[in-house]
Amino acid sequence: MSTKPLVLAFDVFGTVVDWRSSIAREAAPFLAALGRADIDPHLFADQWRGLYQPAMEECRSGRRPYTRLDILNRETLEALLVRHDIDRATIDDQTLTDFAHAWRRLDPWPDAVAGLTRLKVRFPIVTLSNGNTALTLEMARRAGLPWDTILGAESTGYYKPLPQAYLGTAEILGIAPSELCLVAAHHSDLAAARACGLITAFVHRPLEYGGRRAPDADAAQDWDYQASSFIDLTMKLEG
Amino acid sequence: MSTKPLVLAFDVFGTVVDWRSSIAREAAPFLAALGRADIDPHLFADQWRGLYQPAMEECRSGRRPYTRLDILNRETLEALLVRHDIDRATIDDQTLTDFAHAWRRLDPWPDAVAGLTRLKVRFPIVTLSNGNTALTLEMARRAGLPWDTILGAESTGYYKPLPQAYLGTAEILGIAPSELCLVAAHHSDLAAARACGLITAFVHRPLEYGGRRAPDADAAQDWDYQASSFIDLTMKLEG
Repeated sequence: MSTKPLVLAFDVFGTVVDWRSSIAREAAPFLAALGRADIDPHLFADQWRGLYQPAMEECRSGRRPYTRLDILNRETLEALLVRHDIDRATIDDQTLTDFAHAWRRLDPWPDAVAGLTRLKVRFPIVTLSNGNTALTLEMARRAGLPWDTILGAESTGYYKPLPQAYLGTAEILGIAPSELCLVAAHHSDLAAARACGLITAFVHRPLEYGGRRAPDADAAQDWDYQASSFIDLTMKLEG
Repeated sequence: MSTKPLVLAFDVFGTVVDWRSSIAREAAPFLAALGRADIDPHLFADQWRGLYQPAMEECRSGRRPYTRLDILNRETLEALLVRHDIDRATIDDQTLTDFAHAWRRLDPWPDAVAGLTRLKVRFPIVTLSNGNTALTLEMARRAGLPWDTILGAESTGYYKPLPQAYLGTAEILGIAPSELCLVAAHHSDLAAARACGLITAFVHRPLEYGGRRAPDADAAQDWDYQASSFIDLTMKLEG
């Protein structure tokens, strides 16, 4: 058994909140208003999410300075509209910005608020997300996520899975990487954290991709903690 | 009456917490253990606080890169010990670090937790403090301060009252400076915020200096909101 962490840092998209259902929920009326009810809103959500890693990769590679995810989401939305032959010029700017901010309005998994609230009694709970601060703050207030503070890409200036994202978060918290535990539903994220010396906790989210196999399922490792929910994680961390 | 803010950002030292009594409380046993019970712990607190602005000024002026307040507090502590003819070498490193972290263990004013909790229902509440994140996080957990997130010097890289500290905070929050309200007990802080276009709320803390006149009392202006406590501020903002 690994040592107990001093702080728990949470991946957010997919780990704490259900991005796919939430984006589909907002995409449906958005597409219908454009006369494009023929586009499956879940497919639209998957496609939008598919543009997420390439957009961040521009920043990770150094080809572009760190740019907030709110802005990347707006840019990838416009690219996706073009792919669907939707004329961006027919949509007013405020409507586009508001829909791009759908990523601020993601619903938590059913166990998230209760689990975080219980974990917070024993551990400081912070985000370690690629979401920017304003996005994560609005999401937290809407969903009732009781973060002690919001950290992540905007705090360090680096997108995960770059090592600076994990090491910089530990430094801001004033603790060693080995005292920080990343909680995530993604093996790729946890592998990068482990390589930086962090404690790792995997939480299984089988519905993240609507029940389909996770794209990084083959990257599974024997993580320090493995849990089926935040409630289960609470019991394992307190055990 | 000015427009309602979208977010409330709080100065912390003196506005939310009573640094003087709290530092004196920890200084008393620290000094006694050194055989220096002759030093008045409240005087020691005032002297330590007196070294705060000059230390930050090194960073503000650009002579030194942004350095976390935890580190500055440790440095000014060592300087203060020298001033009192206390040999730093007689104290082990961990004891010095722990006492320098007394600034993480400041007690809130009696109305702070109840007032913040009520304000948080209507407004996002964030810090806009010169305290670094780890310091402010530990303080919040110890005192029960329910911040939505911790922002301030470490988030922007600039110490107040530099304009970048206020403008950078609004930018991180994704709002205009005119939509952000600084809540502070210090006229100097509020004047700098107002110069950047922020809404200003003064909360009177007559006991910050042990009942003595505040050093910036002459800098009073007609602030957008003026309150005698966070509870009073709640009523004025909701009015």
